[in-house]
Amino acid sequence: MARTFADISISLDGFAAGPSPSLEDPLGVGGMQLHEWAFRLAAWRKPHGLEGGEAGPEAEVVERTQAATGAFVMGRKMFSNGDGPWEDDPKADGWWGDDPPFHGPVFIVTHHAREPVEKLGGTTFTFVTDGVAAAVEQARAAAGGKDVQVSGGASVVQQALELGLLDELQLHIAPVLLGAGTPLFPSGTPGRLEIVETIASTYATYVRYRVA
Amino acid sequence: MARTFADISISLDGFAAGPSPSLEDPLGVGGMQLHEWAFRLAAWRKPHGLEGGEAGPEAEVVERTQAATGAFVMGRKMFSNGDGPWEDDPKADGWWGDDPPFHGPVFIVTHHAREPVEKLGGTTFTFVTDGVAAAVEQARAAAGGKDVQVSGGASVVQQALELGLLDELQLHIAPVLLGAGTPLFPSGTPGRLEIVETIASTYATYVRYRVA
Repeated sequence: MARTFADISISLDGFAAGPSPSLEDPLGVGGMQLHEWAFRLAAWRKPHGLEGGEAGPEAEVVERTQAATGAFVMGRKMFSNGDGPWEDDPKADGWWGDDPPFHGPVFIVTHHAREPVEKLGGTTFTFVTDGVAAAVEQARAAAGGKDVQVSGGASVVQQALELGLLDELQLHIAPVLLGAGTPLFPSGTPGRLEIVETIASTYATYVRYRVA
Repeated sequence: MARTFADISISLDGFAAGPSPSLEDPLGVGGMQLHEWAFRLAAWRKPHGLEGGEAGPEAEVVERTQAATGAFVMGRKMFSNGDGPWEDDPKADGWWGDDPPFHGPVFIVTHHAREPVEKLGGTTFTFVTDGVAAAVEQARAAAGGKDVQVSGGASVVQQALELGLLDELQLHIAPVLLGAGTPLFPSGTPGRLEIVETIASTYATYVRYRVA
């Protein structure tokens, strides 16, 4: 049965992005460190159009997740960098270039309506203005029976968790302290998860949780 | 070579204790959940004077850590529950009963001087009023060439980290969201650690980090 899951990297002190995100530093100060575990993997580099890279214990998860995912949901800031209308956004075409690594339908949660954008390699960006639940619903319909990945940022993953939309949460816990930034779990509701898979690596600890 | 390390359980949202600690709930609301991984282990139960329990992937770490540790450092609240003088503390004899599980010298960081206390089974409690660094120094001298464990709570571990006293940090990351409480890493200084060991379990993810 297809699942809806989030896959996100966090620091050991719980931040999904560093402080002061900017055009130059969209993941915030130090935030790129959270993704080093991925950058070095051939399994991550290839779909991002990059050569080389290593194998590693997390490679199998990356490949398995890519193969299982039929559609993506992400927040506006993960697609681009503006908060206002698209005309005011210096990165209105997105961070992801002409041949994005998604190769499937991506639903962007935004306050500002926009016509869908088609990119190379099968990636389409569809802009959803009525919230995370609506975006997940559209993604499920578009996923062709495959999984829906809520890719980030922290705010969209939080909302998906709070709305009970997630079956699973895949965390990559980087051995990094950011000290400040966007927490994945802001102070709030207590809860329990269930550990279903753990993969040890010196770059980041991968833990897959079932959401109760 | 003997190391100084902290061993502490945290929630997935980064809390070492839940909110509103009390005499009935010294670990704060929900805080006991962080330690469930240990409570069920025979390797933990036996030194705590309890029968039964299971084996499990973390048992080997618990046994190895116990065998390697020559002295402990802990905060006043982990020993007892007061903030004021000992005469005002309803748990001045400590949480740990007549035969505490430490079986060695324990140094309590406190603002209030007190004569050492000797318990059964080789546990001694010595009260140190000049800070965490002094307590660690005394523990190193008392450890007989073995490791020094900074056992908690969060505040003492934080201070030991900030003062550069720790060689390693052993975390048990419980699949629990507490939503509030005492964070192990309060917002502050960025940094990096190095993952040296990971043990998967369905109860908590154990990661041992070398402190840079």
